[in-house]
Amino acid sequence: MSTTVDTARDRMQLAKDAARTVGLLSDSAKRDALLAVADAIEVAADRIIAANGDDLAHGRDNGLSEGLQDRLRLDDVRVSALAAAVREIAALPDPVGRVLDERTLPSGVRLQKVSVPFGVVGAIYEARPNVTVDTTALALRSGNSVVLRGGSAALRTNAVLVAVIREALAAAGIDPQAVQTVDDFGRDGARELMHARGLVDVLVPRGSAQLIETVVTESSVPVIETGAGVVHIVLDASAPLDWARDIIVNAKVQRPSVCNAVETVLVHRDAAPRLVGPVVAALQEAGVTVHGDAEVASLAADIVPATDEDWSIEHLSLDLSMHVVDDLDAALAHIRTYSTHHTESIITADDANAERFLAEVDSAVVMANASTRFTDGGEFGFGAEVGISTQKLHARGPMGLAELTSTKWLARGAGQVRA
Amino acid sequence: MSTTVDTARDRMQLAKDAARTVGLLSDSAKRDALLAVADAIEVAADRIIAANGDDLAHGRDNGLSEGLQDRLRLDDVRVSALAAAVREIAALPDPVGRVLDERTLPSGVRLQKVSVPFGVVGAIYEARPNVTVDTTALALRSGNSVVLRGGSAALRTNAVLVAVIREALAAAGIDPQAVQTVDDFGRDGARELMHARGLVDVLVPRGSAQLIETVVTESSVPVIETGAGVVHIVLDASAPLDWARDIIVNAKVQRPSVCNAVETVLVHRDAAPRLVGPVVAALQEAGVTVHGDAEVASLAADIVPATDEDWSIEHLSLDLSMHVVDDLDAALAHIRTYSTHHTESIITADDANAERFLAEVDSAVVMANASTRFTDGGEFGFGAEVGISTQKLHARGPMGLAELTSTKWLARGAGQVRA
Repeated sequence: MSTTVDTARDRMQLAKDAARTVGLLSDSAKRDALLAVADAIEVAADRIIAANGDDLAHGRDNGLSEGLQDRLRLDDVRVSALAAAVREIAALPDPVGRVLDERTLPSGVRLQKVSVPFGVVGAIYEARPNVTVDTTALALRSGNSVVLRGGSAALRTNAVLVAVIREALAAAGIDPQAVQTVDDFGRDGARELMHARGLVDVLVPRGSAQLIETVVTESSVPVIETGAGVVHIVLDASAPLDWARDIIVNAKVQRPSVCNAVETVLVHRDAAPRLVGPVVAALQEAGVTVHGDAEVASLAADIVPATDEDWSIEHLSLDLSMHVVDDLDAALAHIRTYSTHHTESIITADDANAERFLAEVDSAVVMANASTRFTDGGEFGFGAEVGISTQKLHARGPMGLAELTSTKWLARGAGQVRA
Repeated sequence: MSTTVDTARDRMQLAKDAARTVGLLSDSAKRDALLAVADAIEVAADRIIAANGDDLAHGRDNGLSEGLQDRLRLDDVRVSALAAAVREIAALPDPVGRVLDERTLPSGVRLQKVSVPFGVVGAIYEARPNVTVDTTALALRSGNSVVLRGGSAALRTNAVLVAVIREALAAAGIDPQAVQTVDDFGRDGARELMHARGLVDVLVPRGSAQLIETVVTESSVPVIETGAGVVHIVLDASAPLDWARDIIVNAKVQRPSVCNAVETVLVHRDAAPRLVGPVVAALQEAGVTVHGDAEVASLAADIVPATDEDWSIEHLSLDLSMHVVDDLDAALAHIRTYSTHHTESIITADDANAERFLAEVDSAVVMANASTRFTDGGEFGFGAEVGISTQKLHARGPMGLAELTSTKWLARGAGQVRA
C-alpha cells in the first residue's frame, strides 16, 4: 500500500480496502462514529466557514451566479444544520443484516438472503457542501465506503469537510480511508470514478439533468439515476375545484426549485370552463406565471402563450405550463411523451379513472388526489433521502438507507451435494 | 407507425408500445398465451428443425466448433424440451402486482409499493436457441416485451422461433410486437440495443465473459451482469474428509461446463497432509486433471504444475486448480483477489470459521459445508432462472421472475397537500 503515488484510482482502492472493515461494523459502532462526526463538524465550524469563504471569494471572482453562491454558502446556522443532518442519519435503524428471505432446500441446506453494504458508493454532484456531508453519513450508516466528487466551486469547503470527517472517524477507531474525495483531480477524478468498475460498486449522480445525463452515458460503473422531474397533474372531468386549486398551488408554489414540484397541468376539456379560470387565478395570486395553450388563454387572463418547449421543460421556478386535452387518453398520451417518470397525479372524483391512471402511468410515484410534493424520502417516512430514482433498476422513487444496500445469499449445510 | 422503414430502433419502439398492453395483462391471460406458445412450438417442430439444419450446415461450412454446434442443434426431443420449459414458466405465479410495502402517511395519503413489469427487456446472448425461448417466456410471464439479439450462428433458427411465438401470441389476442429480434441487423443490432436508453429498460447479457464484458462496458442501458464463476471451495483445518471429498467432486464433476462448478480449491496448510491425497485421488478417479502448486504436488501424484493463470481462469472443463494456503486469512485474501463474486464455499467443522467466512466473503452466494452447484434458480425454488447476477445492483445471485420486475409507488389521497 504505497502512499508515495497518489492517484484517483489509489484512493478508490483505499476506499475498497476500508469497505471490508466498515461493512462489518456493528450498528452501535456506526451510530457512535456518526455522532462523533457531527460533533467534529460543529467544533470545526470556523475552519469550515473560512474555507467556504475562500470558495465564495473565488466563485465571485469567476462569475459564479448568486443562486449557486447561495447553495455553496455556509454560516454557523448552516454548519449546525449539517451536524444535525448527520445526527438524524445516525439515529436511523441499521439497514445492514436484515433477513429478507429464508428457505430450507429439500436437501436440508438452509438459505438466507440478507442485506449487505454495496461496498463503495461513488457520488458525483455539484457545489453543495451539504451533499458532501449527507452522502458520507448515509454511506457510512449503511456500512459503505464513499468516494466523493463535488463541484469544483466547493473544492476548499469539501476538502476541509472531508478532513474533519476523516479525523473524527480515526479518533473513533474507524478506518478514515472509508471516506475519499477525488475533487483535487478535477475532471480526471470524475472520469476515473465513472470507469472504476470493480473498485466502485454503484455511482449516484445528483444535480442538473446534464450532469446526470453525462454520468449515465459515460459510466461503466452501475448508476442509480436520480432525476429531473417534468411532473404532471391531470385535472379530470370530475375534478373537484377545491382539490384542484389546493393541490396545484401547493405542488407549484411551496418549493418551486425541487424535482417534485409540478411543471405541467393537463385539463380535461369538459372541465376546462369550470376549472381553468379559478385555478389560474389562484396560481397568479401566488406569483405564478402560467404558460398556456390557446384554449387556456381563452379562459383566463394574463396567460403567456405556451411554446412546444414548455411541455418538456423543468421550470424549477414559479412558471407552470397548462394544456387542455380532449380526454384521459390524451392526457396519458401527453404524459407518455413528456414525462421524466418521476411523479404524476390525477385529480378526479371518478374512482375508475383514478385506478386507470395509477395502473397505466409509468412513473416512480403515481398519485390520485394528492400533491406531488409528497414524493420525498422524509414524507414517505424513510428518515433520510439519498435521492429520488427515476430508473427502474434496483430502486425507484425516493431512496432511503435500504437502497444503499445490496444482498447476499448465505447457505448453511452439513455436507450436502446436488443430486 | 410506418412499416415502410424498418430499423432496429423501430422494432424497439414497437416493443415499447406493446409493453403498455402486455404490462396490464391478467395472470391468466399471460399463462394462457404461454401455453399457446408452447403448443405452437411443438406444432412447428419440423419448420424449426429445418431452419436449425440450415444454421448447422452454415456453421459447419464456416468452422463452427463441435461444442457450439451441439449447443445450437435442435431435434424433436429438444424442441419438446423448449415447449416444456415454456409450460413450466407459464405455471409460475405472476410476479406483477405484488404489494411490497404499504403505509399511511400522517396526512392520510395511502401509499403502496407494487411490483410492475420493467417494460422492455433486452437480451444479448450466444447461439443457443433455448435462450431465445426461455428469455421470451420469462419476459412475457412478467409482463414485459422483449428484444432479442442471439448469436448469428442461430440466425435462421431464431427467426423461425420468433415467428412461431409471434403467430401464437397474435392468435391469443396479444400484441405480437411484444417480441422482437434484431438478429438480422447483425452487429449494428447489438449496438443499437446497447444504446437504446429510453426504449429498453434493462439489458441482460448471457454468455461468455467476453460478451458480458463488452455489454457492461459499452451499454448505456442499465445492465444486469450475469456472470462468470471463478468459484472457490476452502478446506479449513477442521474440514471433515468425507464432506470435502463429496462436495468437491460434486461441485467439479456433476456439470463442469456451468458457472457454479468449482474452479479452485484452497487447502489450509494444517489440513493438507490429511486431505490433499484422498481428495485429489477422488477427483482423478472422476476424470479431473488437478493443477496444483508445489505443495499439492508433494502430497499427490499426477499433479499438473499450476501457473499464475490457473487462479483466475474459469476452466469450464474437468480441470481444477488447487492451492495450499497458510490459514483462513490467506484463503480470504486469495478469494478477494481472484473471485468473480459468484459463489464460494468453506468446508469446516468450526462454526466460528464458517460464520466468519459467510460474513466476510463478498460474493452473491456464500456457503458453508454445501456444494456450490446449489447456486441455481431451480435449486433455490424459483421455478425458473433468468441468469445468475454477479453485480450488486437490483439483483444478486440466481434471478427468478421477480427480478424481471421493477416497482412503483401508488399514492391515494383525498385532496391532501404537503404542510
